[in-house]
Amino acid sequence: MTMNKQLLCLLLAGGLCAPLQAERLTSEPIQPIEPASFDEPEKIELGKKLFFDPRLSRSGFISCNSCHNLSMGGSDNLSTSIGHNWQEGPINSPTVLNSSMNVAQFWDGRAATLQEQAAGPINNPKEMASTHVLALDVLRSIPQYRQEFAEIYGSDEIDIDRVTDAIAAFEETLVTPNSRFDQWLKGDDQALTQAELEGYKTFKDIGCTACHNGPAAGGSSFQRMGVVEPYVTDNPAEGRVAVTGKDADRFSFKVPTLRNVELTYPYFHDGAHWKLEEAVDLMARLQLGRELEKQDIDNMTAFLKTLTGDQPDFSIPQLPPSNNATPIPVPFAKE
Amino acid sequence: MTMNKQLLCLLLAGGLCAPLQAERLTSEPIQPIEPASFDEPEKIELGKKLFFDPRLSRSGFISCNSCHNLSMGGSDNLSTSIGHNWQEGPINSPTVLNSSMNVAQFWDGRAATLQEQAAGPINNPKEMASTHVLALDVLRSIPQYRQEFAEIYGSDEIDIDRVTDAIAAFEETLVTPNSRFDQWLKGDDQALTQAELEGYKTFKDIGCTACHNGPAAGGSSFQRMGVVEPYVTDNPAEGRVAVTGKDADRFSFKVPTLRNVELTYPYFHDGAHWKLEEAVDLMARLQLGRELEKQDIDNMTAFLKTLTGDQPDFSIPQLPPSNNATPIPVPFAKE
Repeated sequence: MTMNKQLLCLLLAGGLCAPLQAERLTSEPIQPIEPASFDEPEKIELGKKLFFDPRLSRSGFISCNSCHNLSMGGSDNLSTSIGHNWQEGPINSPTVLNSSMNVAQFWDGRAATLQEQAAGPINNPKEMASTHVLALDVLRSIPQYRQEFAEIYGSDEIDIDRVTDAIAAFEETLVTPNSRFDQWLKGDDQALTQAELEGYKTFKDIGCTACHNGPAAGGSSFQRMGVVEPYVTDNPAEGRVAVTGKDADRFSFKVPTLRNVELTYPYFHDGAHWKLEEAVDLMARLQLGRELEKQDIDNMTAFLKTLTGDQPDFSIPQLPPSNNATPIPVPFAKE
Repeated sequence: MTMNKQLLCLLLAGGLCAPLQAERLTSEPIQPIEPASFDEPEKIELGKKLFFDPRLSRSGFISCNSCHNLSMGGSDNLSTSIGHNWQEGPINSPTVLNSSMNVAQFWDGRAATLQEQAAGPINNPKEMASTHVLALDVLRSIPQYRQEFAEIYGSDEIDIDRVTDAIAAFEETLVTPNSRFDQWLKGDDQALTQAELEGYKTFKDIGCTACHNGPAAGGSSFQRMGVVEPYVTDNPAEGRVAVTGKDADRFSFKVPTLRNVELTYPYFHDGAHWKLEEAVDLMARLQLGRELEKQDIDNMTAFLKTLTGDQPDFSIPQLPPSNNATPIPVPFAKE
């Protein structure tokens, strides 16, 4: 279909398509995602290894990729994550895809940057349950890691800032351009079906784009969960108030990106809803006071599925082996 | 160094190198590993997805790759594996690399083929803890999987034989050719250092090759663990007797491959020994009644590290998403 459209554009000698494209790019509340640049390939490669290395956890079993699985939309597709010793996590694991576009990291925004975020799970006793001291001891014991740090940072010192800097550099590459919606934004009228276009129109008309806007269709603000009606959940998370201390921020969470939302089920901070139709229906009711017809819900769901972009495509990393100096993982120690 | 050697061969007009190579290939007890052929790329691609798909487990968290991690020598580098609900596994997880060369699968050889093996962990309550019925329901609910099965097997029926056939086809590609030892076997005299060659000589002289032979340097027979002296362990596994019922097979285990042994720590069926030097020393004592000098142990360890071959190199798979018809994983259900 793209080919046909391009052919048509050629036939029309640019008289129609170029202005149309420019108009959509400036007038629509969602902008296309651009491919990542790869300025520092060595750092990205190192960050990829660290992202996949379970030796950053106490058990030697849990890596960043365990809960932000890059084969599964950068998420774990569980309501809340499984942490060290099979502990039940407190909140749904947000996708790492396009997370560089977020105003801040975590549902409550307690980390300002990807680098700051990456330090958190490593020493969270309910997640990877290591300590920064132990994780760094593991990495420092491995000559291949030391060599890579030396080549990238000018010395073979391995500290948490360098580790998280490399992980963040890798995560910044995890963008998902070229969704069908982006193809449409860039001028390909054939990229979306009528139902998808109608879903997008309703999405705008009822006000979803007040929060779900920008390239990531979200991630740019904190909003109260349950504006018109309260959101019913047994999850105790209170959201942004934990960071600001302001009562007005109670139950305010970062608006999640809708990019790849087809892949990042289950939905909301408690991961309590598995069906996208259900999430659409609930958001319309609770945030906007709108009761949608089934046809509108179906069309909006169809539209949302056009936000699935090109997924990360890279070779699985090969981790440098431990050696006799490497601290041994402790998966089953009795406390 | 390979280049220099090849240049030398050219200069000598083939008068020396070709016969040397042929002699090593026929006379040495270990043969080179050849690259895998890729006759059925679609089936291999499907098998790769299934290998990485945690939805084959009850929790939605554990995949084949969790315990046979292809970023870590096809193993989990833990003494015994972590199963559903963080259960402690009964035995060390053997590497999946070069496992197609094994005489049988599992430490006790209870599965004759890779296909038969692949069915085991899915419904083992201590491992992935699903059932074949549930795992198949998950896969059948996903149209992209059904389509791939239809293209490969001629109909979109998904049964356990087809699932394990595809996983086995992928696993058959997980061979590791081109180790430095194989380069030496094929005639490159510069591929090994003097210490590594001396280690290999000792390895043969004291009799290790009685069991560790063939392309995989192991995997071809069952042997009693502790021939001369008993192996001390608190692991209750009894080995091959569980399959044959013969008392003579008590404490007999499949000889593990030594390919990539540098990557597949910790060692032995109980995963109790983390240092390769320790494993070498113990094997010489317990199996062969030999007390090795430190220099011999170091040389043999250096030789063993030359058995690390090219690791699997492929793009991370993208798993087709679940949908409203897909059974939801149950990671935290109270029994």
